[in-house]
Amino acid sequence: MSGAVGAGLAMAVGTSGGSAHAASGDERLQVAILLYDGFTALDAVGPYEVLCRVPGVRVTMVAREAGPVRTDTGELSLVAERAMKDVHRADVLLIPGGGNRGTTAMMGEAEAHAWIRRIHRRSLWTTSVCTGSLILGSAGLLRGLPATTYWASRPYLKEVGATYTPGRFVETGKIITAAGVSAGIDMGLHLAARLSGEKVAQAMQLAVEYDPDPPFGTGSPEKADAETEALALKLIDDAAV
Amino acid sequence: MSGAVGAGLAMAVGTSGGSAHAASGDERLQVAILLYDGFTALDAVGPYEVLCRVPGVRVTMVAREAGPVRTDTGELSLVAERAMKDVHRADVLLIPGGGNRGTTAMMGEAEAHAWIRRIHRRSLWTTSVCTGSLILGSAGLLRGLPATTYWASRPYLKEVGATYTPGRFVETGKIITAAGVSAGIDMGLHLAARLSGEKVAQAMQLAVEYDPDPPFGTGSPEKADAETEALALKLIDDAAV
Repeated sequence: MSGAVGAGLAMAVGTSGGSAHAASGDERLQVAILLYDGFTALDAVGPYEVLCRVPGVRVTMVAREAGPVRTDTGELSLVAERAMKDVHRADVLLIPGGGNRGTTAMMGEAEAHAWIRRIHRRSLWTTSVCTGSLILGSAGLLRGLPATTYWASRPYLKEVGATYTPGRFVETGKIITAAGVSAGIDMGLHLAARLSGEKVAQAMQLAVEYDPDPPFGTGSPEKADAETEALALKLIDDAAV
Repeated sequence: MSGAVGAGLAMAVGTSGGSAHAASGDERLQVAILLYDGFTALDAVGPYEVLCRVPGVRVTMVAREAGPVRTDTGELSLVAERAMKDVHRADVLLIPGGGNRGTTAMMGEAEAHAWIRRIHRRSLWTTSVCTGSLILGSAGLLRGLPATTYWASRPYLKEVGATYTPGRFVETGKIITAAGVSAGIDMGLHLAARLSGEKVAQAMQLAVEYDPDPPFGTGSPEKADAETEALALKLIDDAAV
């Protein structure tokens, strides 16, 4: 199955055996972002926004079925263009994280795991944002490897055989796992550099005016106090559907 | 029309005359994000992600018609839950930016401008990200005011009567304009603090693990060189649909 030249993303067949540099026209590098019920929107949209303008790259949202896929808050849906069963190949696979319900469900989805493993066999890069690494891990791809995930989910990496390793993102072989939610933007720019060189990635950072100026110093559990941590977990819980 | 208690977002009527603090249940503060053909996904999703878990806040995507709305690259659609004509009221209005085509079209959309003005009359906050400020300005809301926009669009602020003012976001009265694309995350956190206090906003910064570590120092035109600037503009142009 992994070698089948089917419809859609299999277009990338001409380039994915060779260098990671972008090709043009019909040979565009294919980035597949896997959406699922309860995913976190920014986990998918951050990397999408910095990869979709990289020359020779096409980003496609994929899900169990094509059509709208609801996020973890239930207040937003993104449209998946293609169904997993129609996607036999991608040069870059990206698994966003989700809320507890969505992540836990995907950690038990054997069919999705089989698809992830198939795509991974011939990918150039297999990546995740936030709790997406727990889904990659449940598919068996992180055994014995260093990885990161959402700050509150770090203990669960052990359960999928991975070793929590600090960092905005952690690269090991062709696997890159990013920390929580907004870390997907940092990883996306790193990936842009890997796919198309630093000049393009630098230009993409300017293109999305990524000169962050967070209003607070509470962006990681190392920097936030216990009260902020508890409130963050409560807000996430209260808004989950 | 602006006073009509209609369906949907008009639910906020109980709270919007008073304090900006969030109410609960049926009186949730309503954040309306206006999607349009050719908008930039991260402009909308950044603020959505940091506002959607603020207690007592509901974020709704609105567009000319309910249904999928295509982004500036044509590779992604977000679903608008409600049509403008059904939304008579919002406590927070947010206009994302878009590519040249989408922004220019919206700068000429008299019907959208009338809707924006109607919502603005009773909003607590009227906001934009990126070139969304040019749309706000075209609706007549920025005359004589300080504002910001996408770095490459700064000269156009003059054409809508606003004065370009540096900053990740610029607040003047109840109007807040943010700089390009990713600046919507910074503004969103600021808004979260305005709506629900600093403790909640600090928790939301942790909730989205916003501890940015950009791989390059090219996030603004002040920091990037001319070659990076030219390449960024070319990449945006080449990927536009």
